Amino acid sequence: MTTNINEIVGVINKHDSFLIASHINPDGDAVGSQFALKSLLEHKKKKVVIVNAEPVPFTYSFLGKWICPGELKSKPNFEVAIILDSADLKRLGKTVPPLLSDKILINIDHHVSNGRFGRINWIDSEASATGEMIYHLYKKMDCKISKDGALALYVAILTDTGLFRYTNTDSTTHDIASELLKIGIEPQWVAERIYGINSLASMKLLALALSTIKVSDDGRIGWLYVRSDMLKKTGASFQDTKDFVNYVRSIRGLEVAIFFSETETKDEIKLSLRSKGKTDVNAIARNFQGGGHPQASGCRIKGKLDEVIPMVIAGVQKVLR
Amino acid sequence: MTTNINEIVGVINKHDSFLIASHINPDGDAVGSQFALKSLLEHKKKKVVIVNAEPVPFTYSFLGKWICPGELKSKPNFEVAIILDSADLKRLGKTVPPLLSDKILINIDHHVSNGRFGRINWIDSEASATGEMIYHLYKKMDCKISKDGALALYVAILTDTGLFRYTNTDSTTHDIASELLKIGIEPQWVAERIYGINSLASMKLLALALSTIKVSDDGRIGWLYVRSDMLKKTGASFQDTKDFVNYVRSIRGLEVAIFFSETETKDEIKLSLRSKGKTDVNAIARNFQGGGHPQASGCRIKGKLDEVIPMVIAGVQKVLR
Repeated sequence: MTTNINEIVGVINKHDSFLIASHINPDGDAVGSQFALKSLLEHKKKKVVIVNAEPVPFTYSFLGKWICPGELKSKPNFEVAIILDSADLKRLGKTVPPLLSDKILINIDHHVSNGRFGRINWIDSEASATGEMIYHLYKKMDCKISKDGALALYVAILTDTGLFRYTNTDSTTHDIASELLKIGIEPQWVAERIYGINSLASMKLLALALSTIKVSDDGRIGWLYVRSDMLKKTGASFQDTKDFVNYVRSIRGLEVAIFFSETETKDEIKLSLRSKGKTDVNAIARNFQGGGHPQASGCRIKGKLDEVIPMVIAGVQKVLR
Repeated sequence: MTTNINEIVGVINKHDSFLIASHINPDGDAVGSQFALKSLLEHKKKKVVIVNAEPVPFTYSFLGKWICPGELKSKPNFEVAIILDSADLKRLGKTVPPLLSDKILINIDHHVSNGRFGRINWIDSEASATGEMIYHLYKKMDCKISKDGALALYVAILTDTGLFRYTNTDSTTHDIASELLKIGIEPQWVAERIYGINSLASMKLLALALSTIKVSDDGRIGWLYVRSDMLKKTGASFQDTKDFVNYVRSIRGLEVAIFFSETETKDEIKLSLRSKGKTDVNAIARNFQGGGHPQASGCRIKGKLDEVIPMVIAGVQKVLR
């Protein structure tokens, strides 16, 4: 770890212009770590642009804006690309990787499955969030954390630790949070922006989704689903379903929780998988070209809801045996 | 504050036997702060008994057991009663206060509304939880925190700060959490026990409750309700509804969120009120002999659901104007 962070500091000091990118379906760590790194580089008087395949999700729009490839008039001019929180380049979507050819690639990530696609790869699977790694980069580069930078770091860590509750949370996580609060972060203000902005429509959708919950006879697998007609009926959006899997997950005694949803792509079902125990749901998702963490993963499967659900449940039952 | 904590240390050092008690409907802070204080006193070789009107709620039963007055064969023998997290003695229920007559009463609480009913009153409304005050007592008494003590302190702080997100969270809260994690607390293990033990029945009840959500025309007040027949239909219990108000609370733009539920007492409706803004819902609850914090309060109102809801909404609308 130490070697690579030093190499990264060296490259940053040596060059003047940077592009930052991260994965599609950006979560709080993807968004927060990018804005935090942008603050750090700008503090060091560097030219920085953040480019991502998709715009900043509404939930995190209070952190700022970035550029999507479609908005670029010409290929951006920069020396070094820093890719954050992404296990491979495919995770950046289709429009970003073509911008990176012939550039120095730095890969900073905390996913254990990272494919080391960069010229420099700093992978720390012990870090609670990629944002935590950016925090250490601030310290290594002896850079004062601005209030904007602190907010971005806090969002990254807060969301990737599930409010300081997942196994990736340790005393260092709390030490960093303590420092960020001293810089002026107001936890309730941030949490309201991320977790307190549900729509009435999304609550109505949640009511419908929760009424579909089923638990296997042995009590080890639980699941729920959302059909497209539920979205239509309630006026909610697919984005509103992102935490639904956690409701099944919260059921006592379960080992695996799954959320199934119909997608815009006809005959393709999206799955979110969660493990409460030792089952590696990343391995299950990888069977279907998906991925993630051992305790939280996702994938897409061709088929209709009433075919995919029994097929997946039977498959997971085999794994549990 | 310093004077009173010193007085408390003096009384603890001088006496040998203690009774600890806290409020009815015990929450994580009530339970956690009592077990943490018990650990501390036992470490100091004191005789300690925890007595409360109601048994430890199932959610917190992993912390231990205490005694209910009905289980006592005779009046317990002790010199000093320490009352935690309770704004007044009425909050202890009917069966505990008679045990306390003629004893030295120490009152430790972080509620701003505390009535200072003790011989010694240590009230710190800046503390995130009464558990945080017990942590400071450990430090003041130079007492090593055992793993059991750390777990109880962590539960108190975690639950009263809503996973480190409410306005009462500051850098000290995170510093304490960091120290407790070093003692061996596993955040996910604890969070699973408190937040990950829902029943399938409670999820079905949540589905029904969420389908009752209404928002006032001006978008400032939101509410939902649970009728007794919903409990019957799903097999869930009243205890399962304790977080329901937070689902309405999470709706964007709301200022006041209210959960109404029918109770075992016929013709009495229980209310949980939450404020997302500057509205003091404690003042609203006090109109009906209830209470709590400015951002979270509760009360009971005589009447039927279809009478109480419009009456309360009209009243809150007046307050908001």
